[in-house]
Amino acid sequence: MGMKVNHHYQEVKESYLFAEISKRIREWQEKNQDKAAQLIRMGIGDVTRPLPKEVVKALKAASDEMGVAESFHGYGPEQGYDFLREEIQSYYKKFSVQLEKEEIFISDGAKSDLGNILDLFDRGITALVTDPVYPVYVDTNIMQGNKILYARAGEENGFLPMPDSSVKADLIYLCSPNNPTGAVYDRAGLAAWVDYARAQDAVILFDAAYECFVEGDLPHSIYEIPGAKECAIEFCSFSKKAGFTGTRCGYTVVPDKLVFSGQSLRKMWLRRQTTKFNGVSYIVQKAAAAVFTEQGEKEILENIQYYKENAKTIMATLDSLGIYYTGGKNSPYVWMKCPDGMDSWSFFDKLLNEVYVVGTPGAGFGEAGEGFFRLTAFSTHEKTKEAMERLKTLLGR
Amino acid sequence: MGMKVNHHYQEVKESYLFAEISKRIREWQEKNQDKAAQLIRMGIGDVTRPLPKEVVKALKAASDEMGVAESFHGYGPEQGYDFLREEIQSYYKKFSVQLEKEEIFISDGAKSDLGNILDLFDRGITALVTDPVYPVYVDTNIMQGNKILYARAGEENGFLPMPDSSVKADLIYLCSPNNPTGAVYDRAGLAAWVDYARAQDAVILFDAAYECFVEGDLPHSIYEIPGAKECAIEFCSFSKKAGFTGTRCGYTVVPDKLVFSGQSLRKMWLRRQTTKFNGVSYIVQKAAAAVFTEQGEKEILENIQYYKENAKTIMATLDSLGIYYTGGKNSPYVWMKCPDGMDSWSFFDKLLNEVYVVGTPGAGFGEAGEGFFRLTAFSTHEKTKEAMERLKTLLGR
Repeated sequence: MGMKVNHHYQEVKESYLFAEISKRIREWQEKNQDKAAQLIRMGIGDVTRPLPKEVVKALKAASDEMGVAESFHGYGPEQGYDFLREEIQSYYKKFSVQLEKEEIFISDGAKSDLGNILDLFDRGITALVTDPVYPVYVDTNIMQGNKILYARAGEENGFLPMPDSSVKADLIYLCSPNNPTGAVYDRAGLAAWVDYARAQDAVILFDAAYECFVEGDLPHSIYEIPGAKECAIEFCSFSKKAGFTGTRCGYTVVPDKLVFSGQSLRKMWLRRQTTKFNGVSYIVQKAAAAVFTEQGEKEILENIQYYKENAKTIMATLDSLGIYYTGGKNSPYVWMKCPDGMDSWSFFDKLLNEVYVVGTPGAGFGEAGEGFFRLTAFSTHEKTKEAMERLKTLLGR
Repeated sequence: MGMKVNHHYQEVKESYLFAEISKRIREWQEKNQDKAAQLIRMGIGDVTRPLPKEVVKALKAASDEMGVAESFHGYGPEQGYDFLREEIQSYYKKFSVQLEKEEIFISDGAKSDLGNILDLFDRGITALVTDPVYPVYVDTNIMQGNKILYARAGEENGFLPMPDSSVKADLIYLCSPNNPTGAVYDRAGLAAWVDYARAQDAVILFDAAYECFVEGDLPHSIYEIPGAKECAIEFCSFSKKAGFTGTRCGYTVVPDKLVFSGQSLRKMWLRRQTTKFNGVSYIVQKAAAAVFTEQGEKEILENIQYYKENAKTIMATLDSLGIYYTGGKNSPYVWMKCPDGMDSWSFFDKLLNEVYVVGTPGAGFGEAGEGFFRLTAFSTHEKTKEAMERLKTLLGR
């Protein structure tokens, strides 16, 4: 007897990354109280620009609706309101991707759905992730007792690892533009992964949370690749696109063609969501829909451009210093090589102690992150420029 | 080879209850277009009163905050903001229940957490539910490949089944006030369940979604019972309390004393939520906090009283007709015995065809629901009174 708790939870490693960063900053602050105001945080993975005015307007209008019996909304559809699903459907048409409304599920964010999707599979399957990696992919699989395999990214492949047909996996996690490296797959790269997945009857879990940063002809969605609807689920979010990290809305696409062992994953996900979810707040869905209005699009673009300007400042600095990096162009993340062969925590300490700038050590994202360092574009123009000036001074070039 | 989908999803029975009700209403409407306007829906399980003004005010103020960089909120704590957890902590003190803030987790609703909590346990364990039952308890367990046992409720036990020590279970679902029966356990009843759970090292999943309807000395929380913190997780929601069915906020209490096989369920749940959830919208949490202000409490009480007035109308009618029922007093649900020994679908048809009133057949909630019928208090005063007049006419007493 005795309750059978899921013992796989014990196998999840506590992430010390952000706790360790906080601890080192705290210690530095105690020793440098006179310099505390000069600290610049370039490790932040959260947006800082406020919600667009058009979104705030929609939030307030929907709140008013909820205060009147005639326009009050109770339980909504678990898979989201049609008014928002249709906007997303139209958005995908911009990349020539045709989705059925029924394939689009509104969520409270990509992280929830990336975790909950594992409900649809057996415990104990094999997941392939890239290294470095967003830790959630690893931890959610460990919690299920799944086996994890790593596809190593590095300078040699531009931090865009390609499939190895001798490796067998059930689930394949791809994030493009990537967190933490900012690297983006082109069509040929994604096509190779689609071919690999289809050849072995695997499912790609495609995290498109940063697609709004993509420029030019690079793919925004994996469904731009022929055959992807037969093997991929796509997760996206309004978090980075429209500053919704604290407002919470995203969407997941489960194509009808995803059928395994005779089971439609779309129908299974619909069943999962209708049983274990009650939909996203009506008010928040109205706010998300406002993102797609002409004025909404204009305003979110301004915010994205603001962050991109910061990324340009970082890239120009690294270029002038002759430092290798990925990202920045199609991503709010710049993944730089630590100078002079330093390991990532030593560089962290050096930056903090000598020029009072905080970033994120690459080693925190996996073995292959050692020797690299993540800077983000989510600070202000002023602070980003100042931090880069200090970096130039530090490296004395 | 081939993807190992969770085949337990195939074992979930499609619920035809609400689909069948819709179909019969549609057929009736087609045949009775002249009477369509007279239809009264007493089967509705959703609130109809708008959000309290104080809540709308909070929603709009928080929306404005989000539109300004200085007061913008990005990612919040996955377990919820302290300002809301502290309000809930204070609320429990009204029932003399002392909770640590860390034991309270803000969620987007009880349904999500009731489903997701199964992550903490092995697949294939045994869940005990009462019959009749809220279908979500059954379906979420079937999806995990868990075994389901039923504790039969009926007239003989006032629809409040007591534990049978010869039955072994890992999880025990209790909902009090109950959906669909409206029956409420007293302290002695809950104490018997707590003793039973502790004797066999089981966990009670206590659904308190309707606690705001409880009057007098009956328990609002299972933690009013000594020993419950050693065996129970409690799920609650602002849905029925404050009309949040479309706004989405709830909370789950996982006490620190819940330790099984050396594992703290609170720590496991914290790990689960930080890995697979990103917290509830800041705006919605501010709205939920407004429920606890003096003005907020006054307004939600007015709404609850409004529904209770409807329940009284229903109860008075059934009393005058000499029909057995449970609920109504501490619940928005009245669970009536079908007159003249009718089965629940026959009574549904009779009510619909002869007096144009819709309710929910008890058989839809499980075998033990046969011969019973659920009426809800969520309609307007006018319609509720009219429906009850028609019921009296129908039964000719």
